[in-house]
Amino acid sequence: MKKRLDEIASYLGGEVVGDGSVEIKGVAGIEEAKPGDLTFIANPKYVKLLNTTSASAVVMGQDVQEAKIPVIRHPNPYYAFSGAIGLFHKPEKRYPERIDPTALLGKGVILGKDVYVGPYVIIKDRVKLSDKVVILGGSFIGGDTVVGESSLIFPHVTIRENVIIGKNVIIHSGTVIGSDGFGYAKDKGVYHKIPQVGRVVLEDDVEVGANVTIDRATLGETRIKKGTKIDNLVQIAHNVKIGENTIVVAQVGISGSTKVGKNVTLAGQVGLVGHIEIGDNVIVGAQSGVSKSLHPGKVYFGYPAREHSKARKIEAVVSLLPQYVEKIRSLEKRIKELEEKIRQKVV
Amino acid sequence: MKKRLDEIASYLGGEVVGDGSVEIKGVAGIEEAKPGDLTFIANPKYVKLLNTTSASAVVMGQDVQEAKIPVIRHPNPYYAFSGAIGLFHKPEKRYPERIDPTALLGKGVILGKDVYVGPYVIIKDRVKLSDKVVILGGSFIGGDTVVGESSLIFPHVTIRENVIIGKNVIIHSGTVIGSDGFGYAKDKGVYHKIPQVGRVVLEDDVEVGANVTIDRATLGETRIKKGTKIDNLVQIAHNVKIGENTIVVAQVGISGSTKVGKNVTLAGQVGLVGHIEIGDNVIVGAQSGVSKSLHPGKVYFGYPAREHSKARKIEAVVSLLPQYVEKIRSLEKRIKELEEKIRQKVV
Amino acid sequence: MKKRLDEIASYLGGEVVGDGSVEIKGVAGIEEAKPGDLTFIANPKYVKLLNTTSASAVVMGQDVQEAKIPVIRHPNPYYAFSGAIGLFHKPEKRYPERIDPTALLGKGVILGKDVYVGPYVIIKDRVKLSDKVVILGGSFIGGDTVVGESSLIFPHVTIRENVIIGKNVIIHSGTVIGSDGFGYAKDKGVYHKIPQVGRVVLEDDVEVGANVTIDRATLGETRIKKGTKIDNLVQIAHNVKIGENTIVVAQVGISGSTKVGKNVTLAGQVGLVGHIEIGDNVIVGAQSGVSKSLHPGKVYFGYPAREHSKARKIEAVVSLLPQYVEKIRSLEKRIKELEEKIRQKVV
Repeated sequence: MKKRLDEIASYLGGEVVGDGSVEIKGVAGIEEAKPGDLTFIANPKYVKLLNTTSASAVVMGQDVQEAKIPVIRHPNPYYAFSGAIGLFHKPEKRYPERIDPTALLGKGVILGKDVYVGPYVIIKDRVKLSDKVVILGGSFIGGDTVVGESSLIFPHVTIRENVIIGKNVIIHSGTVIGSDGFGYAKDKGVYHKIPQVGRVVLEDDVEVGANVTIDRATLGETRIKKGTKIDNLVQIAHNVKIGENTIVVAQVGISGSTKVGKNVTLAGQVGLVGHIEIGDNVIVGAQSGVSKSLHPGKVYFGYPAREHSKARKIEAVVSLLPQYVEKIRSLEKRIKELEEKIRQKVV
Repeated sequence: MKKRLDEIASYLGGEVVGDGSVEIKGVAGIEEAKPGDLTFIANPKYVKLLNTTSASAVVMGQDVQEAKIPVIRHPNPYYAFSGAIGLFHKPEKRYPERIDPTALLGKGVILGKDVYVGPYVIIKDRVKLSDKVVILGGSFIGGDTVVGESSLIFPHVTIRENVIIGKNVIIHSGTVIGSDGFGYAKDKGVYHKIPQVGRVVLEDDVEVGANVTIDRATLGETRIKKGTKIDNLVQIAHNVKIGENTIVVAQVGISGSTKVGKNVTLAGQVGLVGHIEIGDNVIVGAQSGVSKSLHPGKVYFGYPAREHSKARKIEAVVSLLPQYVEKIRSLEKRIKELEEKIRQKVV
Repeated sequence: MKKRLDEIASYLGGEVVGDGSVEIKGVAGIEEAKPGDLTFIANPKYVKLLNTTSASAVVMGQDVQEAKIPVIRHPNPYYAFSGAIGLFHKPEKRYPERIDPTALLGKGVILGKDVYVGPYVIIKDRVKLSDKVVILGGSFIGGDTVVGESSLIFPHVTIRENVIIGKNVIIHSGTVIGSDGFGYAKDKGVYHKIPQVGRVVLEDDVEVGANVTIDRATLGETRIKKGTKIDNLVQIAHNVKIGENTIVVAQVGISGSTKVGKNVTLAGQVGLVGHIEIGDNVIVGAQSGVSKSLHPGKVYFGYPAREHSKARKIEAVVSLLPQYVEKIRSLEKRIKELEEKIRQKVV
């Protein structure tokens, strides 16, 4: 497939700077791009690579003067390039309407139109799969669970009973939704399991990565709101609520009953204790340990997590601590000398 | 189902304060409770919610004067409420005695009474499943493994060969028991795999969360003792030993050959290096990094983990470091002035 | 099976110190060893256990004078002992040439010689399994994926489409290779999924632990080079490159597009941000948070990760911070006294 650069620009809603007649045959990262490829720069750190790339054109934001090759200028170059990938790579495989003969469907299962259920899938009683749902090989869907329209479940996903999955949800392989919350009451030195009888709700447009765990609520529900994206190996405990359009990066752990706002970003390996609230639009830096509720709209990092400006100052001082110790020692010596002089002269 | 509050109190071993004739129709968390619901307060942080809850009654500990609704007073309110959940929610599904026709059983498999083996389960040679064992859909049980009475294996669990599982053990979906320990010997710059020929033993009443990994021993065994509870996404390396009634919260990692005592709590995302000993009754705070053995009965946190009182003091100072730097600068200035004055007067 | 110690020493390329005629019946760790067992010491920390072990002989390095039992002296005792384990434990199960009748093979699948495909395995179209490949029960291999000679895939592994696996690769249960990278472009407050159309390449002799996630590249590839070993629950994001003979310990997270050199060691729970480079031969201590590129050949640890010598100094000061605060207070007091004296005498 070939396309002229100006056609692509027009499709993406961008503006050509340079020769719009260039023919583009594919898309690639800036280091791997070959002649005929369209590439992109979203991170200023990579602008210098424009000097060495073999790409024939580039999607970028404002600093276009740097480019020696034709440019598609777009206010959101990453988003525009994402559209270009879609242009050159055929969309995700379409699954035919088909229930594989090896799939096992329980009693009272309700199937919408154009549903695909792959081999060795196990679907328990009274499950509802809405129109265009795709359940790939070897997944397990527990009783009374509902999967909304056009949702895609990759191979080897486990969704336990009584889980509600919205529309256009994607769940990657190895993920477990609706496992029992981690709840025990200690009595006479022994832990007794607290029945976990709540549910999990994933709203529309949620995506959940691979090998994630989302526990069902003790009572009530664990809920992930519309448009939130969860990366691999994340742990979401019982009764957690996460707001809309929030990003939860890999290996984050969110403890029981914590509420995370909307438009929040939790970077990789962050841990949140239980029973706190993270305000809307908060950003928490990677590996931070959050033990208190966080105010909306602010940036935090550190262990324990502190507001960004404060954490930066502390980190700067910590980095110089050995020098401050030298300084204290030197002050001590000077004071001793002063004391000595004063004793001799003054007393 | 309806029950009088005084009947419930009597069942739970608690004492009614207020009107015991109130009719209870269900159980719920304090924020979600509706009229007719029984709720509970175990954490003093939530006592204020008694002013706004719609619940008809509450299980709580001593500070009963705060409640405007009838109370079941119980010394262990969380444990008592757990019993109330059991009262109102039918116990976990009973599984019939049944080997699903799609389950594959190897040679010499021994089955107790009332065993349930779900669809697409794979059970290899010489496995022993004791009475009332339940193995749910798609799980894999390796050769020579033994599963004790009344243990419950959720869907998509992998238990490798030669693993010993006790009675009343629960293992959640996606968990892998008995994977090879991570052991290599480096020779001439290349890593050579060390055969991992030991086993894993989970004693009675152990519960293991979802997507956990417990590696088999190189030689000898990896052992989790009676009553210990392990949350999701925990890593337990080869030859680790964990004592009785210990709590291991989500995403903890325990390195090879480390010994953890009994009644220990390892909070979320804690990491333990290999070849150390954690004494009985130790508590380690979330995200702590433990690089040395820890004394019994103490509380630790931090990176690196230090005793609680010391770690608290250090954390308090760290938080004020920018102010101490100001103070050092100011001291420096004052000393300089003193030195100047003394030079002028004294010399 | 019994073997004379001198025979074993000769097989392992070591030298007997003491009585070479001792008969050895098995191998065991130093604490569990019984009479007749050969044990080993690789870590000097355990030399003292030679006083109490029941082992009949020991493989060790230079400090042989400590031993009261016969010794096989070997420059690399851990490696030598690994060979001894292999001697006494029959090698890993040999799998017959067999495609289980319940395995489902897609169109155009190419099978080498001596391939074993276990029960309920799903293999999609155009997959190539080379000679002596073993795919155990319940695994899923996506379309167009290639698995190289003698590679071993444990039960319940998910390998998505278009993944390249080299020779002698081992992948443990629950691991997901080729899941979509975590890439979204934000537009008008909503996250849009960026198609992830690249692939994953695992080169020869790579071993991947249990419940690991390795994402496919957005474009281009995620690549793990020859001989690298990855422990359980590790997250490797899209477009990451890892060099040869690198060790990635459990629960490490490597963010997108980061390049890790060869002979690197990333200890447990380390986190690397995206778009950085870790030089060859680097060692990063457990739980470190790496936010910048690291120079080859150096040792780093801490949060944020700093060079070992600097990090050690800082940690030492941090540990004494409460005392330094006392010191500052005392200096303050002494300066005040000096100022007072000078004011009285001098003014």
